[in-house]
Amino acid sequence: MTAIVVGYVPKPEGRAALRRAAEESKLRGARLVVINSAHGGRDHDGEEAARADAELEQARGQLAEAGVEAEVRQLVRGMDVAEDLISVAEETGADFIVIGLRRRSPVGKLILGSNAQRILLDAPCPVLAVKAEDLG
Amino acid sequence: MTAIVVGYVPKPEGRAALRRAAEESKLRGARLVVINSAHGGRDHDGEEAARADAELEQARGQLAEAGVEAEVRQLVRGMDVAEDLISVAEETGADFIVIGLRRRSPVGKLILGSNAQRILLDAPCPVLAVKAEDLG
Repeated sequence: MTAIVVGYVPKPEGRAALRRAAEESKLRGARLVVINSAHGGRDHDGEEAARADAELEQARGQLAEAGVEAEVRQLVRGMDVAEDLISVAEETGADFIVIGLRRRSPVGKLILGSNAQRILLDAPCPVLAVKAEDLG
Repeated sequence: MTAIVVGYVPKPEGRAALRRAAEESKLRGARLVVINSAHGGRDHDGEEAARADAELEQARGQLAEAGVEAEVRQLVRGMDVAEDLISVAEETGADFIVIGLRRRSPVGKLILGSNAQRILLDAPCPVLAVKAEDLG
């Protein structure tokens, strides 16, 4: 069974990526693996853990609405999101990775962040890049 | 009917992108539009035109092998490939664009070119980025 790996953040681009990944998973009958990366270590205090849990709850709600079963993994191991997504894509033999691209600059211009670039270039599989405002 | 737009160049990453786009088109029953951008103007002489024709012939052969019907457009209008792909994606209401990422540096390290970045950021739809060595 093929797998689709998606990086989730509780922001418009993360929700767009999750929505698209859920559609692709239904279309292909592929297993959906949702990755939420949280930085561990000293900064991972109780408040941050609670916030992360609430975020994942949102993702689960979105998946239930879409009628898609998924495995949701919260990775707290001090790796950055690019490493997490690449390592899970390797482990699952993913068909592709879905990532959200975010607006960054003050005037709303999109800038391709370093994590997105690393995922695009280093992933062992194709990468579907979704923007929050994409129609499809 | 949805459409998939793919940028084709006669290089490993272009063939990988075309292969993947053909698969996606079959999976979705989507119309496949293959774009080969050639720069017009003073540099577009007879020799270059012949080379471009041979390139497109290769693409048609690859599509026939895959058993996929496609519309192959060669655009010679002095726009760069990013503008061409974005404009065709807008015109066709594309579901997504497929692009190939190429190896650039002398040691084979992948570098995200400016055309790829513009397509990723400015396309009106998601973008599936394929590397020549991707498995899926």
